[in-house]
Amino acid sequence: MRSHQRNNEQLRPVQVERGFQPGADASVLIKMGNTHVLCAVTVEETVPPFLRDSGRGWITAEYGMLPCSTNSRMAREAARGRSGRTYEIQRLIGRSLRMMVDLDSIGERTLRVDCDVLNADGGTRTAAITGAALALYDAFAKLDNEGTLARPELMPVAAISAGIVNGEARLDLDYSEDSTAEVDANFVMSADGRIIEVQSTAEARPFSRTQFNELLDLAEKGVQELLELWL
Amino acid sequence: MRSHQRNNEQLRPVQVERGFQPGADASVLIKMGNTHVLCAVTVEETVPPFLRDSGRGWITAEYGMLPCSTNSRMAREAARGRSGRTYEIQRLIGRSLRMMVDLDSIGERTLRVDCDVLNADGGTRTAAITGAALALYDAFAKLDNEGTLARPELMPVAAISAGIVNGEARLDLDYSEDSTAEVDANFVMSADGRIIEVQSTAEARPFSRTQFNELLDLAEKGVQELLELWL
Amino acid sequence: MRSHQRNNEQLRPVQVERGFQPGADASVLIKMGNTHVLCAVTVEETVPPFLRDSGRGWITAEYGMLPCSTNSRMAREAARGRSGRTYEIQRLIGRSLRMMVDLDSIGERTLRVDCDVLNADGGTRTAAITGAALALYDAFAKLDNEGTLARPELMPVAAISAGIVNGEARLDLDYSEDSTAEVDANFVMSADGRIIEVQSTAEARPFSRTQFNELLDLAEKGVQELLELWL
Amino acid sequence: MRSHQRNNEQLRPVQVERGFQPGADASVLIKMGNTHVLCAVTVEETVPPFLRDSGRGWITAEYGMLPCSTNSRMAREAARGRSGRTYEIQRLIGRSLRMMVDLDSIGERTLRVDCDVLNADGGTRTAAITGAALALYDAFAKLDNEGTLARPELMPVAAISAGIVNGEARLDLDYSEDSTAEVDANFVMSADGRIIEVQSTAEARPFSRTQFNELLDLAEKGVQELLELWL
Amino acid sequence: MRSHQRNNEQLRPVQVERGFQPGADASVLIKMGNTHVLCAVTVEETVPPFLRDSGRGWITAEYGMLPCSTNSRMAREAARGRSGRTYEIQRLIGRSLRMMVDLDSIGERTLRVDCDVLNADGGTRTAAITGAALALYDAFAKLDNEGTLARPELMPVAAISAGIVNGEARLDLDYSEDSTAEVDANFVMSADGRIIEVQSTAEARPFSRTQFNELLDLAEKGVQELLELWL
Amino acid sequence: MRSHQRNNEQLRPVQVERGFQPGADASVLIKMGNTHVLCAVTVEETVPPFLRDSGRGWITAEYGMLPCSTNSRMAREAARGRSGRTYEIQRLIGRSLRMMVDLDSIGERTLRVDCDVLNADGGTRTAAITGAALALYDAFAKLDNEGTLARPELMPVAAISAGIVNGEARLDLDYSEDSTAEVDANFVMSADGRIIEVQSTAEARPFSRTQFNELLDLAEKGVQELLELWL
Repeated sequence: MRSHQRNNEQLRPVQVERGFQPGADASVLIKMGNTHVLCAVTVEETVPPFLRDSGRGWITAEYGMLPCSTNSRMAREAARGRSGRTYEIQRLIGRSLRMMVDLDSIGERTLRVDCDVLNADGGTRTAAITGAALALYDAFAKLDNEGTLARPELMPVAAISAGIVNGEARLDLDYSEDSTAEVDANFVMSADGRIIEVQSTAEARPFSRTQFNELLDLAEKGVQELLELWL
Repeated sequence: MRSHQRNNEQLRPVQVERGFQPGADASVLIKMGNTHVLCAVTVEETVPPFLRDSGRGWITAEYGMLPCSTNSRMAREAARGRSGRTYEIQRLIGRSLRMMVDLDSIGERTLRVDCDVLNADGGTRTAAITGAALALYDAFAKLDNEGTLARPELMPVAAISAGIVNGEARLDLDYSEDSTAEVDANFVMSADGRIIEVQSTAEARPFSRTQFNELLDLAEKGVQELLELWL
Repeated sequence: MRSHQRNNEQLRPVQVERGFQPGADASVLIKMGNTHVLCAVTVEETVPPFLRDSGRGWITAEYGMLPCSTNSRMAREAARGRSGRTYEIQRLIGRSLRMMVDLDSIGERTLRVDCDVLNADGGTRTAAITGAALALYDAFAKLDNEGTLARPELMPVAAISAGIVNGEARLDLDYSEDSTAEVDANFVMSADGRIIEVQSTAEARPFSRTQFNELLDLAEKGVQELLELWL
Repeated sequence: MRSHQRNNEQLRPVQVERGFQPGADASVLIKMGNTHVLCAVTVEETVPPFLRDSGRGWITAEYGMLPCSTNSRMAREAARGRSGRTYEIQRLIGRSLRMMVDLDSIGERTLRVDCDVLNADGGTRTAAITGAALALYDAFAKLDNEGTLARPELMPVAAISAGIVNGEARLDLDYSEDSTAEVDANFVMSADGRIIEVQSTAEARPFSRTQFNELLDLAEKGVQELLELWL
Repeated sequence: MRSHQRNNEQLRPVQVERGFQPGADASVLIKMGNTHVLCAVTVEETVPPFLRDSGRGWITAEYGMLPCSTNSRMAREAARGRSGRTYEIQRLIGRSLRMMVDLDSIGERTLRVDCDVLNADGGTRTAAITGAALALYDAFAKLDNEGTLARPELMPVAAISAGIVNGEARLDLDYSEDSTAEVDANFVMSADGRIIEVQSTAEARPFSRTQFNELLDLAEKGVQELLELWL
Repeated sequence: MRSHQRNNEQLRPVQVERGFQPGADASVLIKMGNTHVLCAVTVEETVPPFLRDSGRGWITAEYGMLPCSTNSRMAREAARGRSGRTYEIQRLIGRSLRMMVDLDSIGERTLRVDCDVLNADGGTRTAAITGAALALYDAFAKLDNEGTLARPELMPVAAISAGIVNGEARLDLDYSEDSTAEVDANFVMSADGRIIEVQSTAEARPFSRTQFNELLDLAEKGVQELLELWL
């Protein structure tokens, strides 16, 4: 039996707490089972150098894990520098979020989303994307309320992992499954069922196109459920 | 009126949540008003080089702030390296905690306490010490339960800030007070009323011995109240 | 018309030069059109700490670009540190190459593949994987010739990019196509047509499952052609 | 008997040599027994970003130790980065010196004081403050002589250590005392007997308020003697 | 017998390939025996801060080695930072190249030469200077062709090593000679036989003025031959 | 007239103070005019990895400048990392000192010489070599006195700069001369008149062999005078 008494096609229980960090422009603590990620948005009235005087805005993300979020403590990146894994993840989050909105419609400002993992039990990067998308929704609402920027059209986005464990396709792997999976995949999708990002990796041996399609089917279903958080 | 409807001699409301990070050997989320610090202990079966083969253990601390814990976002230390302030604070926390126990009685192991500020509203370093001391208590209890180490004798320790604001001595400053204080002080004390560490700094002009004694009086009272968390 | 007078389903001209760096244990300069990547293998008789005394070997990769490999000079990573993109790419290369061989069969040694881009015109990461796989083949042959290690069974592997440009699915994008693509994907596959890694990213807007399948079809065809380099 | 044939209430012999570094705007080599610290001021016609266009100036300090200033060589911070101790000390020196003068009266300029320890025998941070205050006096005199800035009103400041060694309160610890002290304290005070900074740390066990007051009495006496250097 | 069947006064075979990196403003791959160095020029329309508004240009160089350019792999400087040797060499290259042209005649622009060693068999720094001088010639020709800058007067420059091996003065040492040389020297000279830079180092024991003159005689001859590349 | 009323062939006044840093194994403060360099030796009972179990010792050097040793303050290398110039100089000092003694005769230990410039007025690297050689003499004497190592045979070594200023060859340039010199050279020589290192650089235009020989003549004379410090 999988954790939380679920079958292969089920998500872990999902909870969202808004406003966890009152100092941020918007913040969401998303919990997917025992994976807890805090997503906080800061609105900055500048853009990176390559966008200056373009009239275009920017959305970017940073990712971190608290040292004791995992079972064996991870050394702090303030001491050892960011790992390759961290760079890879924050680039994925940023790319995915930039698909949510026409950057020409938000003015020359940057929305920076800090995604910090308080507890990690698999699927932190996909939880971060799902939570960050909601936090961006709240941040745009705040900008609208303040009269800074009329709310732009947003495409709801969510992300989920899937994988093949003991030969079975499963949705939303927790850490014990992820660490023994034969295939590990992450999917970012939009409300209309289209794909924003697919990453699928053979961990033990190559996988077939059929297997990949099973994972994609699971992910479509999972993302649709996660997008109910937007209602 | 001060925040939380309190007078100059009162603490902010204090709350403690244990076991916030199940991956740690012990963890405490301490809330003093809107200052929230997560203190998590990791037990490592090694000691720093200068203690090898000494039969002596070590207690040390690391300190960090989440980027959006403050009103204006702080750049992540993973990107810019630790600040001088961070070094200063984590050295203070470590020194204070090492007074809690005879290091010869804990074997050649290190208890590392990660203090991460989730929300900052003044007094993060003293909240970290108070919370970390409780987390160490829990960690030693766990080592005892596991049969690893009989529980050593622990001296309860707590810490509090005090300062002079608008000419008045006040206990437990929140950020708006701290940032305008004429004198800012931090006190670490033990259950028997003795002092472990005093740091008192003139922010606007030098202060008299009388003023300093007023702050020390307030701190004694505050620490006694905080030590009720140990009961 | 696309570069090198090719249609949407064609690769750029591919050339391989072996032994470019006589100081390496094996080296391959692979040219795919104007993308030139030097892949050099070093055999080290040690493994990373997590594999010590496991009887298991390791394959890893590092990636770099010469400053003038691109049209506008890139600052040297020796001066500014590795970028997130570099970390992402070298992790992809390493993961892909480790699928080629049973690591239990190669003894406690590390094969480190340096992939250095001499000229970049799109598709450097996939060219690096294709070239590095060949260089590993040569390195294992050398170990066999020296009597160090009987040649282990190797699964031939190659990689290729595909993308949607102006609404058309195209194979093996060069830089001018890559920089304007609506969808950008990289595929690593094995000789039997199975998948080792898929990464597909929406650059302009989400893509449909049908579009993704078109890219996968192209990639299958391209990888089969590249694997003829192994004959 | 203590070093230099002194009793518990006596300072070590103090000597001051002005102009040691002719390239600086002012420089003082202060010797307290075998602790020798070179304090050199540079006047910069800029201020840190947070003070731009404020009309306000700034005073800051940097601290370093020559590798062979101690009995066992210290690795150079140019090779290993600044230590936490260095950050802590230079922040203390800067805070203390900023109390000497109304920063609104010195114009938008920075006085940077480099405090470099040539020989260390305990009390380097307090010697640095005492010497740096004198060097600032000389730097303001130079600015006045040059016609750049009329000499602002300066509050004389000095600093001294005290501690409890073998149960006895002692003034101005040298290294052999400092390394075995039960309590270690540093005091920065002004000419009128008020306090600028107090830092007092239990090294072996907590200390009582009575003990702390003994240290403060010694420090008051010591600072008065050091301020005779200003006459 | 020396490598390439040459006597003590002979250079290794020299080859030059122009345009190796089409993305650069000019590029030269120089081969001296088995030492291969790629020299690529980038023209930047800025100058370092100390030359702003001076009307004067700048020429500078960076130097790197591919990890497998040597017989035992060198760790990548992107991971460990530049070595002292690298700094020393790139400063030498830059100084030498700045002698080629009156910097007042090239406008406020920087010509940056990247010298990357593809294969190293001794004499990489002198090959880099000889190749970089040719690449600068090509870069100035390009600027002239584009109408950006009329071609300035250039002084042809080349560099060569010499040394004493087994008591014999030899020209153009390869690695096996260099690593056992008693004296090692590098010379940069101009077409009229004058000296731009001399560096001569005793590796085993001091050398006499007579020995030094023998090396200088060899170098004069070698540089004259290398300057035929300019014809 | 040159500084210190000297002609082109004269050294600046030279003074040596031994034992400046009692914490070092030996220390020499050398003053050549207004250039003051502190050279301190630490004996370490280890060698670098490449010499382990070789029976051979090592001599190495580090070089630094105090921030206010120059007329305009230099940023501290603890903050910005070592410069290329620093690496270049400390490599030169180390190489030169290793010529003083047969490293097989000193056992597996390292003599590390810290050369710190207290005041800089040209010629700091040559003053460092001359002072460090004397400090090594004292360190070997101490090892002999302690009974650790019988005093090995030492070759006295000294170093001096020379240059062409306003068309005239001059010995021992001070900063004002050095910064306007047409040719700048540094020579390290032994007591028997042989050469250990020559570095000569054209600053304004190439120089002739005749000019170089004039500089070498001056240097020979200067070194002989400096070696009188050894008597």
